[in-house]
Amino acid sequence: MAKTIPISLDAMGGDNGAEVVIPGAEIALVRHPDIRFLLYGNEQVIRPLLEKYPRVRDASSVHHCEVAIAMDTKPSQALRQGRWRSSMWRSIEAVKTGEASVAVSAGNTGALMAMSKFCLRTMANIDRPAIAAIWPTLRGESVVLDVGATIGADAQQLIDFAILGGAMARALFGIQRPTVGLLNIGVEEVKGLEEVRTAGRLLRETPLRSLNYAGFVEGDDIGKGTVDVVVTEGFAGNIALKTAEGTAKQIGGYLRAAMNRTFMSKIGYLFAKGAFDLLREKMDPRKVNGGVFLGLNGIVIKSHGGADAEGYASAIDLAYDMVKNELTHKIAQDLVHYHRGRFAEAAPTSEGDL
Amino acid sequence: MAKTIPISLDAMGGDNGAEVVIPGAEIALVRHPDIRFLLYGNEQVIRPLLEKYPRVRDASSVHHCEVAIAMDTKPSQALRQGRWRSSMWRSIEAVKTGEASVAVSAGNTGALMAMSKFCLRTMANIDRPAIAAIWPTLRGESVVLDVGATIGADAQQLIDFAILGGAMARALFGIQRPTVGLLNIGVEEVKGLEEVRTAGRLLRETPLRSLNYAGFVEGDDIGKGTVDVVVTEGFAGNIALKTAEGTAKQIGGYLRAAMNRTFMSKIGYLFAKGAFDLLREKMDPRKVNGGVFLGLNGIVIKSHGGADAEGYASAIDLAYDMVKNELTHKIAQDLVHYHRGRFAEAAPTSEGDL
Repeated sequence: MAKTIPISLDAMGGDNGAEVVIPGAEIALVRHPDIRFLLYGNEQVIRPLLEKYPRVRDASSVHHCEVAIAMDTKPSQALRQGRWRSSMWRSIEAVKTGEASVAVSAGNTGALMAMSKFCLRTMANIDRPAIAAIWPTLRGESVVLDVGATIGADAQQLIDFAILGGAMARALFGIQRPTVGLLNIGVEEVKGLEEVRTAGRLLRETPLRSLNYAGFVEGDDIGKGTVDVVVTEGFAGNIALKTAEGTAKQIGGYLRAAMNRTFMSKIGYLFAKGAFDLLREKMDPRKVNGGVFLGLNGIVIKSHGGADAEGYASAIDLAYDMVKNELTHKIAQDLVHYHRGRFAEAAPTSEGDL
Repeated sequence: MAKTIPISLDAMGGDNGAEVVIPGAEIALVRHPDIRFLLYGNEQVIRPLLEKYPRVRDASSVHHCEVAIAMDTKPSQALRQGRWRSSMWRSIEAVKTGEASVAVSAGNTGALMAMSKFCLRTMANIDRPAIAAIWPTLRGESVVLDVGATIGADAQQLIDFAILGGAMARALFGIQRPTVGLLNIGVEEVKGLEEVRTAGRLLRETPLRSLNYAGFVEGDDIGKGTVDVVVTEGFAGNIALKTAEGTAKQIGGYLRAAMNRTFMSKIGYLFAKGAFDLLREKMDPRKVNGGVFLGLNGIVIKSHGGADAEGYASAIDLAYDMVKNELTHKIAQDLVHYHRGRFAEAAPTSEGDL
């Protein structure tokens, strides 16, 4: 028997819990028959659903949990209520013990991040985790991080994010030295946030083997796909992500209204339906569902809470890809190389800056 | 003769200077024949152009300036080179002396803001100016500020921005108490940036006559038009603005590619051409060209540096509207009311927070 990929699922997470998780697992399993699932959640809810999805049933072990974390639970509350025993916690814990290679949850982001940090801990030399999003661009896809794990980041944390995001881009796109840009306002070296300028100077002065630093980028460079990895702190990153989502919805709304307006435009729509379907597919947010928690001792994938089965399956696909392409190993390698290089090459006087 | 609206133009600002400014002035003048222009710039460049646009010539006075600020000049450099004598400075100065009611420049944002601050100074009780953008939404338009005047803002500065933006929304949309939201990540009261939470608490505790505080909004609420005014500090605001611009271009690119793909889709495009023209008009960035500098003793409008004559005319239209609708007066009123209310009603112990 070929090697299987064990993935733990928080079966209770998301707006619709197991009703979406199990059918989503079915879709992903058809695409990747070598997945084995560890399902965490209420057995009374999961078991009857598995009868409808025998493929998932045969590829899964069910681990009963009494507690499910609600979507509106605050992180501190979630930790108090759900540590050790909630479906969310236990799906993460399976990564810690090595039973699973990666965990997926559609539960609330704050709680999931708090539990992931508490359970998996940040990697050596990494202060803070980040959430990385895969952003569709005119050139393909880019990795954008942090899109909301923590607010603010100093220069060293931005460099950490660059390394983490670079490793993810290598795993995802198979590029040897992905280009990395720091999100800023204005591309001139003298402009923008102090921490970003410092990080830019350091990345320029000490080139890294694992990434190709391309300087500052602005908000409109994300959609252009100017760089493979866009690095920013979590507040601006989250605002950028949500603003892009909102703009896409807005233009979709304009387009629908315009096509429905006259008899002629309706006929035009029918002729061009294939093109519109393609556009809809291109803009389908379900296709790129999944935020990747980076910088912890193990990978956790956050699915959108409102994802349907197709969207949830995309999050599982992403989890699968990250394991197959050895994301954790790549990150560890890059960090070792960076810190070895840093201590070997950096002049003592510049240490303070780092 | 009816009362005229005097508008000063930095005729040398922008990627194409007077070549765009004069034709743009012509377009705006057709729409608003009561404008009178004060043109600042190199006479040798302006005079010949005016011969081609006699309507502008007859409605303008020309003020020769030796110095023009280049698009890549740093703010400090611009002040050194151009104070007192550049076309940019003198167009702003005309607002200070009262010769003009508002100034328009397509020159570089950093230099224009530095000169505007130096020349006009911030209003009493206002620490820092903001740049307000008019953002097309699914419901119409919203005011978003700050989109890049300064990085970071404390709670009091965010409240100042709310008052400034509220007054602008009243002037622009004719709404008596515009709704105002604070841009944040997560809409729960416990989430997001400390300063934003404090500003939110203060706005909730002390309702203002001039605006209706609606709580936190997220990035996707901007395009939805959830509130009339979105308040944020300049870094996140600039990233949001540029990201939305980038996303709109990206989707436009997808749409063009999809429509060109097959014979059927090309036919569909021809039938629906009216609809596409409407969509293009709706998404035309030239229609909403113009950032409004708020919080200074006088209004300055920044046109996009790459704007064409149509886009520049929109910036002049905006300047005209702001004067006609007495923006400066509205801001002054709202500030007086806020500070009077604050000092009359606020308990001494809460003063420290404000």
